[in-house]
Amino acid sequence: MALGVKAFPFTFVVHLLGIAGVVLVLVWCIHFRGGLAWESSDKSLIFNIHPVLMLIGLIIIGGEAIVSYKSVLLKKEVKKVIHLTLHAIALILGIVGICAVFKYHNESSIVNLYSLHSWLGIVVIILYGIQWIYGFIIFFYPGGSEGLRADSLPWHVAFGMFVYVLAVANAALGFLEKLTFLENSGLSKFCSEAILVNCLAVITILYGAFVILAVGCQGNEEDDHSYSAI
Amino acid sequence: MALGVKAFPFTFVVHLLGIAGVVLVLVWCIHFRGGLAWESSDKSLIFNIHPVLMLIGLIIIGGEAIVSYKSVLLKKEVKKVIHLTLHAIALILGIVGICAVFKYHNESSIVNLYSLHSWLGIVVIILYGIQWIYGFIIFFYPGGSEGLRADSLPWHVAFGMFVYVLAVANAALGFLEKLTFLENSGLSKFCSEAILVNCLAVITILYGAFVILAVGCQGNEEDDHSYSAI
Repeated sequence: MALGVKAFPFTFVVHLLGIAGVVLVLVWCIHFRGGLAWESSDKSLIFNIHPVLMLIGLIIIGGEAIVSYKSVLLKKEVKKVIHLTLHAIALILGIVGICAVFKYHNESSIVNLYSLHSWLGIVVIILYGIQWIYGFIIFFYPGGSEGLRADSLPWHVAFGMFVYVLAVANAALGFLEKLTFLENSGLSKFCSEAILVNCLAVITILYGAFVILAVGCQGNEEDDHSYSAI
Repeated sequence: MALGVKAFPFTFVVHLLGIAGVVLVLVWCIHFRGGLAWESSDKSLIFNIHPVLMLIGLIIIGGEAIVSYKSVLLKKEVKKVIHLTLHAIALILGIVGICAVFKYHNESSIVNLYSLHSWLGIVVIILYGIQWIYGFIIFFYPGGSEGLRADSLPWHVAFGMFVYVLAVANAALGFLEKLTFLENSGLSKFCSEAILVNCLAVITILYGAFVILAVGCQGNEEDDHSYSAI
């Protein structure tokens, strides 16, 4: 039951929301939160690396990787390389972003892995890694048999969407958790920073929704097999 | 690109996770949080109505409404009545649950609608209501034309899944927000209540995932038109 409209226009909405997300997360972490640093006596600057890399990496580049089969007007083989390369970049940025928050916790004597956000974050990065490795082996190199690839493709798409939606939901959890900490430390509930972070979370969710919508719509090829990466 | 397996076995997982969710939310709100009350000098008892009704209503009964086309072995007309009745119950419980949290806020002098959870909650309940009314008019009474119903069905399914996933994500946000408040008020980060709430959130997410998985799998009818409610 595919949606009877073309995906291509929706991929432009994805790009625009992605740009808005990048701008807002940088404004938040640099203008409002003081910037980014891997080494600093101000440990909050180490934390700031986390939302920037997770959003730009796992969510935005990861989302662009997902829609690349619908947004790029090139041969299927080229799209496949773009798809797996963008996902690899997303995964690496995600891993570095998670390392940043562990570093921040350890240097600030905050315990690790107690919150729902942290639990789901670990699950997401592990599933994302498994999904990438499976996809690489079966669909790229050395490549599975024709039958295995045909059987795997719907599950690759479904599992990929599940992991991606979980990542987007977990980003929303992260924004809410951090903002709640800041508000408990005295930040006004309706100040411009609080509104900005909530708007950033809403844009993140909309971005994820349009990524999934693009997957559910028709590709550009007349035969509508743009996801037939096998 | 439907998944090549039957949905029916997955609907049993949905039922089991739903039962687990009901038990855990009641254990949390009654055993750990002191119970439920619409009128009380202990305002936290008014709050407790909120997670109980939102989870049992919007998430669990709403999820059962969604999978009813795959879980119930009856005629399509009967399934349709079950589908819209369960969704109506979910919607009503959701509205009462939202009223409970406004009542709690107002009687405790807490401002309303400042958090991401509250923003998304309002969006979800409005979209859920619009979706129900549109579905009722087009697919039940008085019913749209054959063409309109055929055109509407994929969008009804897609938009319904979007609203439902948003509701599940917002439930996770609510669990994290409440637990963060409790931890800021002195609750240990690794006590049994904290672990229970995180596990409840994980079960809620798994419940939502299996609901969506069941939608993506084949129905029981041989011709696989179990979602052709037109």
